Amino acid sequence: MLQSFTAFGLEGFPMVHEGDDLARIIVDTAEKNGLEIQNRDVIVVAQKIFSKAERRIVNVREVEPSRRANSLARKVKKSGRFVELVLRETKRVLKASRETLIVEDIRGLICINAGIDKSNVEGSDNFALLPLNPDKSAEECRSEIKRLTGKDVAVIMCDTYSRPFRRGQVNYAIGIAGINPFRDYKGKPDLFGQILKVKNIAVVDEVVAAAELLMGQGNEARPVVVLRGLEESAIFSEKNRVEELYISRREDLFRNTM
Amino acid sequence: MLQSFTAFGLEGFPMVHEGDDLARIIVDTAEKNGLEIQNRDVIVVAQKIFSKAERRIVNVREVEPSRRANSLARKVKKSGRFVELVLRETKRVLKASRETLIVEDIRGLICINAGIDKSNVEGSDNFALLPLNPDKSAEECRSEIKRLTGKDVAVIMCDTYSRPFRRGQVNYAIGIAGINPFRDYKGKPDLFGQILKVKNIAVVDEVVAAAELLMGQGNEARPVVVLRGLEESAIFSEKNRVEELYISRREDLFRNTM
Repeated sequence: MLQSFTAFGLEGFPMVHEGDDLARIIVDTAEKNGLEIQNRDVIVVAQKIFSKAERRIVNVREVEPSRRANSLARKVKKSGRFVELVLRETKRVLKASRETLIVEDIRGLICINAGIDKSNVEGSDNFALLPLNPDKSAEECRSEIKRLTGKDVAVIMCDTYSRPFRRGQVNYAIGIAGINPFRDYKGKPDLFGQILKVKNIAVVDEVVAAAELLMGQGNEARPVVVLRGLEESAIFSEKNRVEELYISRREDLFRNTM
Repeated sequence: MLQSFTAFGLEGFPMVHEGDDLARIIVDTAEKNGLEIQNRDVIVVAQKIFSKAERRIVNVREVEPSRRANSLARKVKKSGRFVELVLRETKRVLKASRETLIVEDIRGLICINAGIDKSNVEGSDNFALLPLNPDKSAEECRSEIKRLTGKDVAVIMCDTYSRPFRRGQVNYAIGIAGINPFRDYKGKPDLFGQILKVKNIAVVDEVVAAAELLMGQGNEARPVVVLRGLEESAIFSEKNRVEELYISRREDLFRNTM
């Protein structure tokens, strides 16, 4: 039988505000789209709407820059207030040079500006920070969807980032609930019975990449995508954490390449 | 209306051999799967079957290592013959250390071992090299599918690679035909009319990531995935080249981070 999966981009998603119950909005919007949530659906949700619901929008005018932030700001040619925002979310600065600030954030994610940006945030001085605990946010959404619908789904929070060596941004998983981030082939046979030694596919990054194709990054207003038919591709599990995707410098084969 | 796309993994794909006409096999196998190829389908094809059809399988026993290969081989703890194979496909070595050889290959792609591996290749000494000109291979497949079916499709060749900063491998586009690699939002408005300055999504990498979810990397024997419904997400165009995805060191924001 032909294997397939389908991705549905929910239309008519309302603007999200502080304190909103995202799970309820997702369930209601799916229903208005004629889409009944099913067991084993994978629901991909843009980070930005979690940040809005969780009061993670900050007016940069209200941020007092530290001396370290002001000093770094001169180097990277950004405002001290913005750099202060980034530093508060930062564990380690990887690069601070003209117009580029790349950090390992307090959650272990490596990205530009600690993932802070203002696209699709209302108000010209307002910036969205990433949720404090993305796995917890995803899990709360997942269990609330279960309570509302009775269905066991997976929820993945995503955001788009630049990556080394390749032009353009892609969607990455930054919070997970109900799904194993990997499909590990190590020790499994290939077509000719040879044992695979290194293949370990980052399934959740591929799932959110698929979802991005429908989400869009501009005024599409489509922050939630439901993927159906991934039972064979993904491992549904409640024990995993997004940190499993974050590799230590020691283990990273690419260290000392850039 | 609910936006959606569906990915179909063709079942019963035959073993591919040197000289095989991939386009015809794809069209025939789609038909056996009850899937009629349509205009604007995006057909994702695993690199390995292009390599097999194009006689890019090499018996490493027949490769004579150069002195440079032998010297590097001691450093990376691999065989001189294998390292010779990699060097013949290499423009620049980025890293050669214990058990890790990372290069920019002759096509401009940065990856481990110049993409050479033996998974799903018959014969314990046989390795698959990447096709010499992946865009040309994809374009030949695309135009032959057009000739056989009358349909205008896009063809993307893919392979899975490790990436910096994150654990696990994902599928990447390494050859394209009939599709723009990007969806560029620069200059476009967000939800609140603010103009986006940097968003440029690497759509083809997201499309092949989606396809990998059905392909698998073991004995699934599912090297071709057809995606339908991407008219809104992808820009169909005959003018693009995969090299547009390969960023120069000067432009790469991540230089000096590792």
